[in-house]
Amino acid sequence: MSDFLVPETRVLAVASQVVYGHVGNSMATYAMQSLGCDVAALNTVHFSNHTGYRQFKGTRATAQEITDLYQGLCQSNLTDFDVMLSGYAPSAAAVEAVGCDRDGPEEEEGREAWLVFLGLLDPVMGDQGRLYVNDDVVPAYKEIIKQADLILPNQFEAEVLSGIKITSLATLAQAITAIHRIYSVPHVIITSVQLSKLSQSGGTPTPPENFLTVIGSTTKCDGSPRLFRIDVPALDCFFSGTGDMFAALTVARLREAVSAAGDNLQSTASWVSPDSISATDLPLARATVKVLSSMHSVLERTMEARNAELAKAVLEPARNEGLTAEEQQKQEYLRQTKAAEVRLVRNARFLRDPIVQFQAQEWNKEDLPADLQ
Amino acid sequence: MSDFLVPETRVLAVASQVVYGHVGNSMATYAMQSLGCDVAALNTVHFSNHTGYRQFKGTRATAQEITDLYQGLCQSNLTDFDVMLSGYAPSAAAVEAVGCDRDGPEEEEGREAWLVFLGLLDPVMGDQGRLYVNDDVVPAYKEIIKQADLILPNQFEAEVLSGIKITSLATLAQAITAIHRIYSVPHVIITSVQLSKLSQSGGTPTPPENFLTVIGSTTKCDGSPRLFRIDVPALDCFFSGTGDMFAALTVARLREAVSAAGDNLQSTASWVSPDSISATDLPLARATVKVLSSMHSVLERTMEARNAELAKAVLEPARNEGLTAEEQQKQEYLRQTKAAEVRLVRNARFLRDPIVQFQAQEWNKEDLPADLQ
Repeated sequence: MSDFLVPETRVLAVASQVVYGHVGNSMATYAMQSLGCDVAALNTVHFSNHTGYRQFKGTRATAQEITDLYQGLCQSNLTDFDVMLSGYAPSAAAVEAVGCDRDGPEEEEGREAWLVFLGLLDPVMGDQGRLYVNDDVVPAYKEIIKQADLILPNQFEAEVLSGIKITSLATLAQAITAIHRIYSVPHVIITSVQLSKLSQSGGTPTPPENFLTVIGSTTKCDGSPRLFRIDVPALDCFFSGTGDMFAALTVARLREAVSAAGDNLQSTASWVSPDSISATDLPLARATVKVLSSMHSVLERTMEARNAELAKAVLEPARNEGLTAEEQQKQEYLRQTKAAEVRLVRNARFLRDPIVQFQAQEWNKEDLPADLQ
Repeated sequence: MSDFLVPETRVLAVASQVVYGHVGNSMATYAMQSLGCDVAALNTVHFSNHTGYRQFKGTRATAQEITDLYQGLCQSNLTDFDVMLSGYAPSAAAVEAVGCDRDGPEEEEGREAWLVFLGLLDPVMGDQGRLYVNDDVVPAYKEIIKQADLILPNQFEAEVLSGIKITSLATLAQAITAIHRIYSVPHVIITSVQLSKLSQSGGTPTPPENFLTVIGSTTKCDGSPRLFRIDVPALDCFFSGTGDMFAALTVARLREAVSAAGDNLQSTASWVSPDSISATDLPLARATVKVLSSMHSVLERTMEARNAELAKAVLEPARNEGLTAEEQQKQEYLRQTKAAEVRLVRNARFLRDPIVQFQAQEWNKEDLPADLQ
């Protein structure tokens, strides 16, 4: 009857929204819909454009407004969600308002209300390993993610959450193990690890410098990790919204992979596969391979379109005539930022039918800390 | 390169947004995206659910907030839209804030910034021919639609706009002619005319009572209408968001039909076909046929899903135990309203590939007023 591989899935997506371009819910909603998910978008901010433009207008929802919207859903019995995906929220209280209802009375039997959190600290942290947020925000987030089944920290966020500095593959494995244990989060994906920058202890071949590695893990019964890695070539361009795209597609593809796994995995708590399933056969690994393949195709085409757009502008030198040097620079920056907006909708076929070009690999034992070997 | 028939189209969609369900931008955005349009959604309200539930929570944007968002787009050169689609705005000032910029400096050569307005009076009017809005709102709307190229009034709104009471096919034709002339709007579609309720003056066969008729027209050079009609079977269920769905799909399909028409129609002012094109060969007619076919399939399947959901609940009589009669009635109403939410995403194939099952017909000359025969 359906032309979707993903089973019917109702997602509550709590994230920011922009009028122009694709970040937050303006990315995640369509990414999930294109795979067949029914998405309820609860927007935490309504901005004209993403903050990468260095200027924007719009409003932030207060924690009270977010709570009200969620109460509006509750009072009309509209909370039968299979998954909750939370992105940027302007305050921890805002996320708590929604997140605390995981085990509410509305949950139907046989359904698992998933909480997936992504990029919690992203909008407020530096990228050189320095934390810019207030000290009280981190504990609030740490409390919230205990309710999550999957989190998608980047390398720096993984360090903050685990308390372990990632300098090698062994410390990376330790950090993931710690996150599984401290927060009881069964699925973890660390996006964008640059393996070539970590010191090597074992025999794991390092991809070239222009590759990024995505590391994932689903716990075994005893809480130990099942680690897999996927190397993908990095594209020479900064795109906004890729974290949201990754999370959104992962929600849909994980649901698909869990459904395809059989063995009643869909009604197993937190979709944790039996210990007999190896790391690279995990639904999480299968999902991530598809997600990264989709993203690579879309971003490759985005970069082509961006380059064409920027090349075209070279032919229009009159564009900035009469402007001050400073104003010209600003206009040029705006133009480049706009040109790099992800070409999402016209490339939907790569979301639906990814050309699988990557594969999940097991870790070499020598790269694991002694207690995990 | 692309798998879309609709050429690249950037749409600014100004409408309400709900977390749960599909009305306003929560309907229009995905409907247009599924056909390949890049949609910038500027949300005028953010409610938990549509007002048909008789209870909702959320916020309305002020006119100032809407203006700010649009100014945010302007300051970063993000207004290169091909079409603007405007739905419900909480105030006339809000629509004016955006609509007045049609001929702004951002418009690129060879592109036509379309303004399509729909259901302007819908949220505030009665359905028995009585106007509930303040007297000053109607003149404000009348001013705004002079900038539109296509409007989609229902029968009552067409009466208000034309000043002509629609009691027959002849007065219907007169009302459309008046709307073309008074507001210089070249394309008009009147949704949901119940022909069987109008008195017949000529030989036009009347469809059965359970049919609705959609009447459309694109002006000729002299301002006279080219009238076509499409009869569609009415479904025995009330759905919210169908007006938004109609408008959104019409934007995409009209763009497609205009592009397919050749003859440089795409760069002709307001996409008005030469006089040699007959009413039923108009891009507007071709577009509407596809739109109605898509909608009929989606709504038929929605009704099936609704009926299945309501039937399932009959087997759960314990559901409302312990509630007062009044509370039971309320819960039942909420359940029925939720069950009738349009099943949009899982039926996307009918949006993309409509099974064409209707056709546009010319009007019989005898049904036209003397000056149009």
